[in-house]
Amino acid sequence: MLKDWGRMEKPQEEELESRLKKARERLEKQQIIIKQKQLPVLVLLEGWGAAGKGSILGKIIKNIDPRFFKVAVMDAPTQEDKRKPFLYRHFIQIPEAGKFVFMDSGWLTDVTKERLKNDMSDKEYKKKIDSIKRFERQLTDNGYLVLKFFFHIDEKEQKKRLEKLLSDKNTKWRVSDYDLWQNKHYKKCLDVYEQYLCDTNQSSAPWYLIDAKDRKWAQLQILETLVQGIDTALMNSSLAVPLLQNAFPLKQIPKLSDISLDKTIADDEYEQLLEHYQSRLNELHNEIYRKKIPVIIAYEGWDAAGKGGNIKRITEALDPRGYEVHPIASPEPHEKARHYLWRFWNRLPKTGHVAIFDRTWYGRVMVERLEGFCSENDWQRAYVEINEFEKELADWGAVIIKFWVQIDKDTQLERFTERQNTPEKQWKITDEDWRNREKWDLYEQAVNEMLQKTNTSYAEWHVLESNDKKYARIKALKTVIEEIEKKL
Amino acid sequence: MLKDWGRMEKPQEEELESRLKKARERLEKQQIIIKQKQLPVLVLLEGWGAAGKGSILGKIIKNIDPRFFKVAVMDAPTQEDKRKPFLYRHFIQIPEAGKFVFMDSGWLTDVTKERLKNDMSDKEYKKKIDSIKRFERQLTDNGYLVLKFFFHIDEKEQKKRLEKLLSDKNTKWRVSDYDLWQNKHYKKCLDVYEQYLCDTNQSSAPWYLIDAKDRKWAQLQILETLVQGIDTALMNSSLAVPLLQNAFPLKQIPKLSDISLDKTIADDEYEQLLEHYQSRLNELHNEIYRKKIPVIIAYEGWDAAGKGGNIKRITEALDPRGYEVHPIASPEPHEKARHYLWRFWNRLPKTGHVAIFDRTWYGRVMVERLEGFCSENDWQRAYVEINEFEKELADWGAVIIKFWVQIDKDTQLERFTERQNTPEKQWKITDEDWRNREKWDLYEQAVNEMLQKTNTSYAEWHVLESNDKKYARIKALKTVIEEIEKKL
Repeated sequence: MLKDWGRMEKPQEEELESRLKKARERLEKQQIIIKQKQLPVLVLLEGWGAAGKGSILGKIIKNIDPRFFKVAVMDAPTQEDKRKPFLYRHFIQIPEAGKFVFMDSGWLTDVTKERLKNDMSDKEYKKKIDSIKRFERQLTDNGYLVLKFFFHIDEKEQKKRLEKLLSDKNTKWRVSDYDLWQNKHYKKCLDVYEQYLCDTNQSSAPWYLIDAKDRKWAQLQILETLVQGIDTALMNSSLAVPLLQNAFPLKQIPKLSDISLDKTIADDEYEQLLEHYQSRLNELHNEIYRKKIPVIIAYEGWDAAGKGGNIKRITEALDPRGYEVHPIASPEPHEKARHYLWRFWNRLPKTGHVAIFDRTWYGRVMVERLEGFCSENDWQRAYVEINEFEKELADWGAVIIKFWVQIDKDTQLERFTERQNTPEKQWKITDEDWRNREKWDLYEQAVNEMLQKTNTSYAEWHVLESNDKKYARIKALKTVIEEIEKKL
Repeated sequence: MLKDWGRMEKPQEEELESRLKKARERLEKQQIIIKQKQLPVLVLLEGWGAAGKGSILGKIIKNIDPRFFKVAVMDAPTQEDKRKPFLYRHFIQIPEAGKFVFMDSGWLTDVTKERLKNDMSDKEYKKKIDSIKRFERQLTDNGYLVLKFFFHIDEKEQKKRLEKLLSDKNTKWRVSDYDLWQNKHYKKCLDVYEQYLCDTNQSSAPWYLIDAKDRKWAQLQILETLVQGIDTALMNSSLAVPLLQNAFPLKQIPKLSDISLDKTIADDEYEQLLEHYQSRLNELHNEIYRKKIPVIIAYEGWDAAGKGGNIKRITEALDPRGYEVHPIASPEPHEKARHYLWRFWNRLPKTGHVAIFDRTWYGRVMVERLEGFCSENDWQRAYVEINEFEKELADWGAVIIKFWVQIDKDTQLERFTERQNTPEKQWKITDEDWRNREKWDLYEQAVNEMLQKTNTSYAEWHVLESNDKKYARIKALKTVIEEIEKKL
């Protein structure tokens, strides 16, 4: 059925040359506009072994200033890669605003190879397809241009090319075992590719089938599609994107104002439970390490709610080689230049490890929302995007624990004042904290909305009543233990 | 795998009642806002036989003013339906702005039934899936809220319900043969449904799986999803939609200014060819009638370019029982209240018939664009939407012939003046024609863009050089004949 995919018609040599020239000139001009308008462009090159991706890529990038692009060659995933979530190694390669990334093989190859060689189950395959669709759509929703090319040659042509490469000492190394396997099982591969192309042919990121028999003609197809795609993306660059319907199972969760904060714990009970739970958590840390289960603990809460001390009681119970705490401040320029979830993807643990985030991706719908660091459309879209992100982590097998550390306004004032008046604590209090405090009501509203919209059944929120910090610490430890035990 | 689909958690009876009440009240308020904001809402109810769609629908609509909704019960397609393009019978049912349509069974049932009972081929299935995805996306892009519910019950529950219905004279009629067949082949049906739900689970119109074992609980799931969906759609109601990458094979076509208009034909040659071609076309009309091939001829062109006379020479050759001419003026209120392609879907011929459109859906990117009858985003989006519309017709098997009737500015002036000065022709010339003439250059630019962006390989444009009307008529006849012959 690949035949039915829309293809351009190959022109005569003379017309081909003149159209090539025109497209190249256009691309040269476009790269400047891309830079100015800060458009990120991700070009995915997939296709049959020996279809000529590399050599054509070489031709394409000649028309672009080397400072404006990067080529990412995605070899087979390493053991290390395999301990990260699916798509991790691709997500971290996405381009910065204003730049191109050309990716030589990507998630198509990962998924189809696994399906062809290791009999990935239908269920697993469908899950992957969903992940891919969400990933690509998140990119395009966030202003990325994603262009996906599949280089197509027929069985005979592939065989001819492979034999030619093999016959020369200097090119022999370019033929992989997989290439040869592909050619031997061409029909089977074709079916799997076709199915994949259909399954991931999204309106915002469609597949372009490239007739790669003639290299110059292949080059023209790529260039003209690229140039056309950039024009469309530039027209979209200032548009807001319609919000999606929520498709995730949400659990009811009370509003902050309905949460009673008078819970306390006696000192001796605290000491006893602390020891008990920390020792249990320490055992569990060994177990998740052995069973290669990743754990992600996310902390959000009011300033001076006691996040730091709470996190400390968790980490005290963990083997230092098996966890990392990520304090999240405002994004750096290279982080700001990418999808806002990029810096969190970048900090994901490997399987068997624990990552603790002191402030998180929820900044998008709190501080970024309230301080105007992103557009209204950006933060409104973020609820679904975050649910999708966490779905990805859950599908990977992660235990996800999200804490909201809750105190009341008076308690915050007490703690602020104490910090102000205690020399060794003064570093903990800044003018910004006081400014944020003035916006308490707005924040409370935003937090309530966040809790309602992101309390999914696979990544629930847990509110820690932290007027009594000790109570909150014990509850946190207990929650972490319970959530890990559920998974084991 | 249906189990994995996100479902809400069934609450206790008391909470269920209070949430039901809340959702009903919310819906009652929303219907007014929907009316004010002119949001069209299409709710699709699909699912197993005896899953209770009907009775729950009855409960839902109780909360809506009868003037604001319509229920469309889609029985199995009739013979007449089958002679129209796939989705025709659904497209014509889409709601007006500000109103609900509840569709009891829709395109899921059509496709899966065909696949289950008549062994629809994989190729045919994929084509239908593509059509469905485009259809739903076009609706949401054009501001429709599309909510898709699948009522799920397990094999045992279905059996129990069917037996109960059968055991009572008064309800026996409600059990169809297909319901019984479904239950007998439950596993097979489940697989096909699952695949379909995955294949059509789009981000802008996701599926909601409804646990339909308990009716009150099913009602709550529907109501809460509906209410949530309406809130989201209302937030989107003023947003522009990002333009899509072109995914259709486009052919190169010259600009209007590069088309030479000095082509003429001598009177005697004209008479001779006219008779020859008309007689051939008449033969072909019989043939397409027998072979049930639909033909769509679309005329666009400058005022006074000679469209009317040209169309006449075509229709003279046709059997009056087998064609219809649709003169397209500005849309009426009930047409304006729907997707702009609705009035063209509504006028599609049945197989074996010829439909001639005197002005067409291309008005969107010409007059509507230039007179500001739609937003910039609307007409920019229309190129892809129109290509998709014509793809639908091509996939159906239609011969699509698109004419641009071209004259130069001087010729138009001559003809306008002649009309003005000839009493029996004065009705043909209006102030609007003169006003349009003033915008000639803007129109020419719009027409050129239209030709470039919609000259697909499956629905090409043909320019008729009509400074010499007779030349244009002969060329039109010849083109129609050739295009039909290609198909036969």
